[in-house]
Amino acid sequence: MGIHEYFKSLSDLEKIYRCPGKFKYEEHSVAEHSFKVTKVAQFLGTVEENRGNKVNWKALYEKALNHDYAEIFIGDIKTPVKYADPDLRDRLAHVEESMTQHFIQQEFPEEFQSIYHERLKEGKDDTLEGKILSVADKVDLLYESFGEIQKGNPESLFTEIYQESLDTILKFKEMASVQYFLTEILPDLLKGEFTNQAELEKISRAILKNHEVEQTFAIDE
Amino acid sequence: MGIHEYFKSLSDLEKIYRCPGKFKYEEHSVAEHSFKVTKVAQFLGTVEENRGNKVNWKALYEKALNHDYAEIFIGDIKTPVKYADPDLRDRLAHVEESMTQHFIQQEFPEEFQSIYHERLKEGKDDTLEGKILSVADKVDLLYESFGEIQKGNPESLFTEIYQESLDTILKFKEMASVQYFLTEILPDLLKGEFTNQAELEKISRAILKNHEVEQTFAIDE
Amino acid sequence: MGIHEYFKSLSDLEKIYRCPGKFKYEEHSVAEHSFKVTKVAQFLGTVEENRGNKVNWKALYEKALNHDYAEIFIGDIKTPVKYADPDLRDRLAHVEESMTQHFIQQEFPEEFQSIYHERLKEGKDDTLEGKILSVADKVDLLYESFGEIQKGNPESLFTEIYQESLDTILKFKEMASVQYFLTEILPDLLKGEFTNQAELEKISRAILKNHEVEQTFAIDE
Amino acid sequence: MGIHEYFKSLSDLEKIYRCPGKFKYEEHSVAEHSFKVTKVAQFLGTVEENRGNKVNWKALYEKALNHDYAEIFIGDIKTPVKYADPDLRDRLAHVEESMTQHFIQQEFPEEFQSIYHERLKEGKDDTLEGKILSVADKVDLLYESFGEIQKGNPESLFTEIYQESLDTILKFKEMASVQYFLTEILPDLLKGEFTNQAELEKISRAILKNHEVEQTFAIDE
Amino acid sequence: MGIHEYFKSLSDLEKIYRCPGKFKYEEHSVAEHSFKVTKVAQFLGTVEENRGNKVNWKALYEKALNHDYAEIFIGDIKTPVKYADPDLRDRLAHVEESMTQHFIQQEFPEEFQSIYHERLKEGKDDTLEGKILSVADKVDLLYESFGEIQKGNPESLFTEIYQESLDTILKFKEMASVQYFLTEILPDLLKGEFTNQAELEKISRAILKNHEVEQTFAIDE
Amino acid sequence: MGIHEYFKSLSDLEKIYRCPGKFKYEEHSVAEHSFKVTKVAQFLGTVEENRGNKVNWKALYEKALNHDYAEIFIGDIKTPVKYADPDLRDRLAHVEESMTQHFIQQEFPEEFQSIYHERLKEGKDDTLEGKILSVADKVDLLYESFGEIQKGNPESLFTEIYQESLDTILKFKEMASVQYFLTEILPDLLKGEFTNQAELEKISRAILKNHEVEQTFAIDE
Repeated sequence: MGIHEYFKSLSDLEKIYRCPGKFKYEEHSVAEHSFKVTKVAQFLGTVEENRGNKVNWKALYEKALNHDYAEIFIGDIKTPVKYADPDLRDRLAHVEESMTQHFIQQEFPEEFQSIYHERLKEGKDDTLEGKILSVADKVDLLYESFGEIQKGNPESLFTEIYQESLDTILKFKEMASVQYFLTEILPDLLKGEFTNQAELEKISRAILKNHEVEQTFAIDE
Repeated sequence: MGIHEYFKSLSDLEKIYRCPGKFKYEEHSVAEHSFKVTKVAQFLGTVEENRGNKVNWKALYEKALNHDYAEIFIGDIKTPVKYADPDLRDRLAHVEESMTQHFIQQEFPEEFQSIYHERLKEGKDDTLEGKILSVADKVDLLYESFGEIQKGNPESLFTEIYQESLDTILKFKEMASVQYFLTEILPDLLKGEFTNQAELEKISRAILKNHEVEQTFAIDE
Repeated sequence: MGIHEYFKSLSDLEKIYRCPGKFKYEEHSVAEHSFKVTKVAQFLGTVEENRGNKVNWKALYEKALNHDYAEIFIGDIKTPVKYADPDLRDRLAHVEESMTQHFIQQEFPEEFQSIYHERLKEGKDDTLEGKILSVADKVDLLYESFGEIQKGNPESLFTEIYQESLDTILKFKEMASVQYFLTEILPDLLKGEFTNQAELEKISRAILKNHEVEQTFAIDE
Repeated sequence: MGIHEYFKSLSDLEKIYRCPGKFKYEEHSVAEHSFKVTKVAQFLGTVEENRGNKVNWKALYEKALNHDYAEIFIGDIKTPVKYADPDLRDRLAHVEESMTQHFIQQEFPEEFQSIYHERLKEGKDDTLEGKILSVADKVDLLYESFGEIQKGNPESLFTEIYQESLDTILKFKEMASVQYFLTEILPDLLKGEFTNQAELEKISRAILKNHEVEQTFAIDE
Repeated sequence: MGIHEYFKSLSDLEKIYRCPGKFKYEEHSVAEHSFKVTKVAQFLGTVEENRGNKVNWKALYEKALNHDYAEIFIGDIKTPVKYADPDLRDRLAHVEESMTQHFIQQEFPEEFQSIYHERLKEGKDDTLEGKILSVADKVDLLYESFGEIQKGNPESLFTEIYQESLDTILKFKEMASVQYFLTEILPDLLKGEFTNQAELEKISRAILKNHEVEQTFAIDE
Repeated sequence: MGIHEYFKSLSDLEKIYRCPGKFKYEEHSVAEHSFKVTKVAQFLGTVEENRGNKVNWKALYEKALNHDYAEIFIGDIKTPVKYADPDLRDRLAHVEESMTQHFIQQEFPEEFQSIYHERLKEGKDDTLEGKILSVADKVDLLYESFGEIQKGNPESLFTEIYQESLDTILKFKEMASVQYFLTEILPDLLKGEFTNQAELEKISRAILKNHEVEQTFAIDE
């Protein structure tokens, strides 16, 4: 029944929780994650612009805001499943895509269909905006796992998520915004006193070394 | 790390909730659903036995208790996705299966491996026990959707789930236990005073008629 | 401690719930509300653009995304209080503003301060983007109250919120996007079968009449 | 609609949670806080009486039971806001007061109005009962923050609240009941084995020293 | 470890929920119930005093505040069990009593023991204060069940609780405060528009008639 | 109203939470506990069978699945109460039994009554299946308390529950499945890195020594 269905569907994203099936001190809905990713992307874009790079803000906001909308159709599938089997991954991506297309054709009036096909497609491409989205998505995931680790969550899964997030961020280490994150933000995150602080710092150093990033954490000084 | 990992994994099923992304008055974990399905299967098996059919109780309990264990690996995938695309469905089933096998080989000592390969495989086969599981799984789903409908849940999804559950149960209408359900249990369920009672009764009649089941609901008398 | 504090603060918005102290079937965090408002604003902006109006997308996204960020400092103050006393309202707005400024000066490096002073200030101004924000904020509030009303919430507060939201939206009835909302979206919202449907339709008609909007609901046909 | 509205409003205090916007292991409603403060005040009053001071029990119970009732009108405003600006604080107190008065005039029959004006006004005055309320309110807040600290809450806010609570309690160090708290209760609270035990003890000693209270904690012996 | 243990135990009452094992739209902790009962008792006592009866306020507050404290030892036992078997009921009461005594002897210094033995014993005796407690306890239970009924809870249990509460209140129909409740408060409660309004009014009339109370509900006029 | 009432009652077990009144990081419903106990019993039975003992699987599953069903009638009574007074314990057991019998007679058709009388009676007898149930019940309780201890729960209650669980398991130390638990599962549970690991290992050793069990934990090697 048109745009009413689309507006109503936004509320479903408040009821899909990330990383189901594991004990967590804090739950995060997909709607909340999308909000935080867009805010982080906004900051990273600002760094890029201040360093002289041209940012297409309209594209950046669209990518960040909509990047997990398709979870409305396909729900929350555990990461190990998603990535266990490259064929399955492709097929799931394909199903997501076709369900999204079907939804747009059914609910959106024709005048908006092509705009929303563009908006709701996969945004993590090779443009600056696509790369900022890739980084922002992982920055929020890193903060989510950090929140669990610093409260003493005994599930090793969260250390693995932290590692995987930092590792992915480092694949974009040439970007000005990633360098800013590594030199100005990460050291503050690791500086606090919390359960597992030393362990987390060690892990972070190892990953940075792996990527041949020379990082002098403020805490060394 | 062996059976400890297996025991610990049981608790993960307490944290996977059924039917994510939709407003519900009550949440049900996969562990709770598995408990209820086993209890329902126990009753249906008793009816079959009392009607003179031989029940392999060991097989029935194993099937019911374990039928959703693989959700530990693959999480909760929305039904429309699961069934939208037969190829995807097969591939997901295949991934579930291979992840289950991998888990058994990694965590279970050799002496238990073949037993657990048998226990954790798909149980909905053509044996009497497999058919009882198919019915019991849908009876619990029917009660879950009924619980939402009678509290006034405005999502039409729950009416669809109710319909689909009853429809599947009726595919087994030759079974003594299904006949018992239709004549002795369903009428009581529909008899109470609740929001949408009349609507639900109408829907139920239509499905029964569709399956050419003559059903005199107690309420008619 | 810089941008780390800013990133961490985003998570606080996941823990501030809207409309405290009243029974609700569904809770909505400020983070979730901000996400939905931005998505709604995106659609309304698209309607404006399709009707030939020029939209400054960067400004629109900034306004929508950040419009409730200051709740981090001041928390959730009940609406009747906020508006009961114009002096208090001004003073609260002033405190919000000065706390926001203080936070930016303390946590943001100088190069980003003026950008974030601009971003975090009140966005509901007389520009097209400011007006879209005013409407989008109320559209989400209208959906929140609608969600309670259709589930049978006995608190009359939610009918009042529905009325107040629709009334505010109608103050912008000259806008192309508001006309779209009134003719294409609102009728679908009121069309469904739910508790209090007739009542809600009556209320909506009365408000529309008040604003001298001729509205033929699809349901009349 | 009279006293029915008043009775119904009591339930709203079950839905206002203290200290919103921060991660907590345990939530406390205003109703629960009010119960605990009244119980603590009862004990502190008993100490005063046993030490020879005259306690007006009727006044003490009225003050403790009702001390946060006005949060029904004004909701939960973050402490830093409340105290950031003395003018604002006064104005908020004024609004609370006038909303309370308005409520009493509207809902209470005339015969009860003056009694409830007296009961619902600010109770923290210079009488013994007013001072016991001030202490009891902070003792419960100290236990709330202690509950977070001993579970490992990484938010430094809870250490600040602990400090601020103890500091306020010590402003009443001449009272017999405060001396009892310092010598008989606080040492037991600090004695247990928990995360951050040593840190909390150090903080407590520093505050006591600041107030020139000689305190030999049982743990020293 | 003394009074610290007592203060800490107050928080346990925040974690014992009333009426476990049944679907409810709203949960109420024993701490919240105790708060509300004390507030209701305060009002009922005020009515008695205004009608010329002498109220021992200290006794009334002590009874109301502490009336469910023993649930800390014995937890939440389902009402049908409690009352099914008079012998069991006596034995449970006896266990509660002896556990309470044991706790007081173990945790309270001698100087406070007799005071707390008095405070924590069963308060529902034949004094005016004891009778006010009996009524106030049922008034809150009546509001709890009313809250479920008006939201459409399909469990008939809540209608039974409503009936049993009103029935018990009517056993005290000679009291001025009960007459006030029946003529001034109950009619307002029944007046609103809500699911099951007519049904609830009918039930209430029947119980009143049973007790030979002539009640003209405001709604008749 | 017959089997419908029985099926509906299963859902009540989803709403009775174990160990009420104490702070816990994770809640477990009776339905979830019953599921896990049945799964653990299944594994322990498999060990017994592999060691050459004959297992009556039908009996084992019936005992495990139904062992806490009677909590539907009697709710969750705190363990200290249950065991404080042997007379009370017997009387509570008697009440449970008679309520269960009454329910069966009222809701079950005659043809199923004797079967369900058998199924719902106390299952912890001296048969191999009864002993496996006793052990499985405590293994799940041990995992529940372990889950709290490793997350840093400051309540000493959970250490006491851990101890009591292990102590009870050791009363069955002659059983093949208990020996398997002690040599193959418990060492893995204690091996991980978590808060209180050393303490828990020490406690476990002391209990094992008490029962004269020589246990070489893998961690020693």
